[in-house]
Amino acid sequence: MNKVQLPFGMQDYLPDECYNKDKAESAIASVFSSYGYKKVSMPTLEYYDLFTADGAMPGNKLFKLTDTDGSLLSLRADGTIQVCRMYVTSMKGVQRMYYCMDAFEYLSDANTARDREFAQIGAELLGSSGADGEAEVITMAVDALLAAGLKDFKIEIGHVGYFEGLAEEAGIPADRIAELKALVNKKDMLGVELFFADADVSETFRESLLALPSLFGGPEVLSRAASLCRSEKSRAALGSLGALVDKMNKAGLGQYVSIDLGIVSANNYYTGVVFKGICEGVGSSLLDGGRYDKLCDRIGRHTEAVGFAVGVKRLLTALKNRGVWDRAPKADIAYMVGDCDPALVRRTLVRLRKKNRVVRIFGGESELLEYCKRRGIRSAVIFDADTATEISLSGKGGDE
Amino acid sequence: MNKVQLPFGMQDYLPDECYNKDKAESAIASVFSSYGYKKVSMPTLEYYDLFTADGAMPGNKLFKLTDTDGSLLSLRADGTIQVCRMYVTSMKGVQRMYYCMDAFEYLSDANTARDREFAQIGAELLGSSGADGEAEVITMAVDALLAAGLKDFKIEIGHVGYFEGLAEEAGIPADRIAELKALVNKKDMLGVELFFADADVSETFRESLLALPSLFGGPEVLSRAASLCRSEKSRAALGSLGALVDKMNKAGLGQYVSIDLGIVSANNYYTGVVFKGICEGVGSSLLDGGRYDKLCDRIGRHTEAVGFAVGVKRLLTALKNRGVWDRAPKADIAYMVGDCDPALVRRTLVRLRKKNRVVRIFGGESELLEYCKRRGIRSAVIFDADTATEISLSGKGGDE
Repeated sequence: MNKVQLPFGMQDYLPDECYNKDKAESAIASVFSSYGYKKVSMPTLEYYDLFTADGAMPGNKLFKLTDTDGSLLSLRADGTIQVCRMYVTSMKGVQRMYYCMDAFEYLSDANTARDREFAQIGAELLGSSGADGEAEVITMAVDALLAAGLKDFKIEIGHVGYFEGLAEEAGIPADRIAELKALVNKKDMLGVELFFADADVSETFRESLLALPSLFGGPEVLSRAASLCRSEKSRAALGSLGALVDKMNKAGLGQYVSIDLGIVSANNYYTGVVFKGICEGVGSSLLDGGRYDKLCDRIGRHTEAVGFAVGVKRLLTALKNRGVWDRAPKADIAYMVGDCDPALVRRTLVRLRKKNRVVRIFGGESELLEYCKRRGIRSAVIFDADTATEISLSGKGGDE
Repeated sequence: MNKVQLPFGMQDYLPDECYNKDKAESAIASVFSSYGYKKVSMPTLEYYDLFTADGAMPGNKLFKLTDTDGSLLSLRADGTIQVCRMYVTSMKGVQRMYYCMDAFEYLSDANTARDREFAQIGAELLGSSGADGEAEVITMAVDALLAAGLKDFKIEIGHVGYFEGLAEEAGIPADRIAELKALVNKKDMLGVELFFADADVSETFRESLLALPSLFGGPEVLSRAASLCRSEKSRAALGSLGALVDKMNKAGLGQYVSIDLGIVSANNYYTGVVFKGICEGVGSSLLDGGRYDKLCDRIGRHTEAVGFAVGVKRLLTALKNRGVWDRAPKADIAYMVGDCDPALVRRTLVRLRKKNRVVRIFGGESELLEYCKRRGIRSAVIFDADTATEISLSGKGGDE
């Protein structure tokens, strides 16, 4: 019966899940705020064109609606693009913003394990910040995951320019580079082979490209990668990446950072450094980010920018797997009201609620004490005969 | 150009607006939590039937989408109905829940002043709580508005049973009562007159019904109302309402509470006590609530329930009008990095960020000092020549 089911890929967050979600999001928001990022919020519905123009996102991944005037709307598919719209229309200079929201991905297969609505908390640094901006954002990504309670993760960093340099060098037509990018990004090497069979590419390029997924690890990867490329673009990308990773290492963050030239683009719109956060036991990335210097252009003003977004549910999965998981806090005090002056009840409750979660039981004294015992509540208050009587309890146990 | 515009009735929250929105929501969430309510979260997309079955909501107010399997979906139109679904499918007994979310209302007139996406923070008390539950929820509504920073507001309380008793007494057919309810609720007395002209009703009923909008104020309203009705249902409603208001008065909350029998239903699903929060300068209600004892039935299990939701944007309008409005906090410290050991920079920033908002300036010393002066930032740090130098500034002014 449709009334009680949820559409596939949609979910409720019950109190415990919601509590841990809020806790993680608020820890991350505090980190963003400590870096001077300010929270913004964008609407759930936008014009379809915002997300799809110039191929920023594939249209078939969008939930579409027709508006009353016939225009095509879409459920928010990406926060970064919305922040760019907001920046171009109302801001200038260097701006730091973050958001906490649900995004939507249209999927047609009801058997998918993926969510069609997913919580993201993301940060964007817009305006000229250069390589220092990349270091700021990646350092903040490390601090965000640490603040959420995760310890064993890596931010893997790549650079779209390396792959693009290789592809241009090999004469791959511009309109097919995106297709090849997607295959490399999925590490779909069979797909890459089929692409080669179809396109006319040199043996050297084949080799370089097939080597991409193996180009991950420490700084030694950079020299191997350098031996596989000849274009200025690829070499410049390796130079930037090397300097960035070197700086992160010198700052003492080496344990959280590694290189992966196989990451060429989580999103079509990345133009330079790209990165993702990974940890054991979670199949997909915890966060995705990168530089996107062309995204504002298509909305109307050239702006350099770099940012990332954390996939909150994947992060929660990682935290739960590692035992970083709490119950939603139970009440501190429970009370019942018998025959008592409402003014006394009110005064007492106002005082107690300043520092406690205080819950009413609709019943008599035995129900109250039974409730406190069952839930492990540490204090009971009985309002009766115009008196408030507090009873201290063990406060232990409790199955709620 | 569609890419930079927003669909009508949709909005961004820029940093200052977003800051005040978060502040109000978090003050209200703290109140809910202090009453033992736990936060939950429900998806943005639901089956259309959930909202419309048994006339709970009018279908023409819903944003509709067709899913991949042909089933009809809707953007979330109401949090209370979602909480009922969640309760019936996964909970039992007395449960207290709250949510903070955006709901959607489909409007076809692009010239509307109404929002089509609106933020709500709401609380629901499900399970048998009787009249005490109503008092709890209305008291919590008072505390929520006070915590958000509003002082001059009233919670107006009515009872659907009074109106329904009158209508039944007059022999209005059940299927037309909702129609009449909507007219009375809008205080559309011309509409009511037209309804009378169409339906065959007694002169007595005409008079009682036309008197409804004037039945507001203190407890003296109850005796006037009693003189206008004869049915058991209407009298019982007045009895419940009187006892509730009496209790609120005795608890010392009289200044925040008044009676309004003209409120017959903000939502079709209310079955008993109904209430709304109002204040000067805001045309619509700040919050709407009531008892809804039949909403869970249609999902599958009979459950008494009472709750309310605050319209966050209306509340923000009221707060802003009253000067309860802040700027999003500016940075406490700004810094620049010249030639400095990254480990020293990192160590210093980690320490400073524990208690401060610390923002990087991409430039030299003069840009840093100029930035601090312009924004009224109280401290500048220069990382250069392998040393961190702190400079204290006035921290005054600032136009950001």
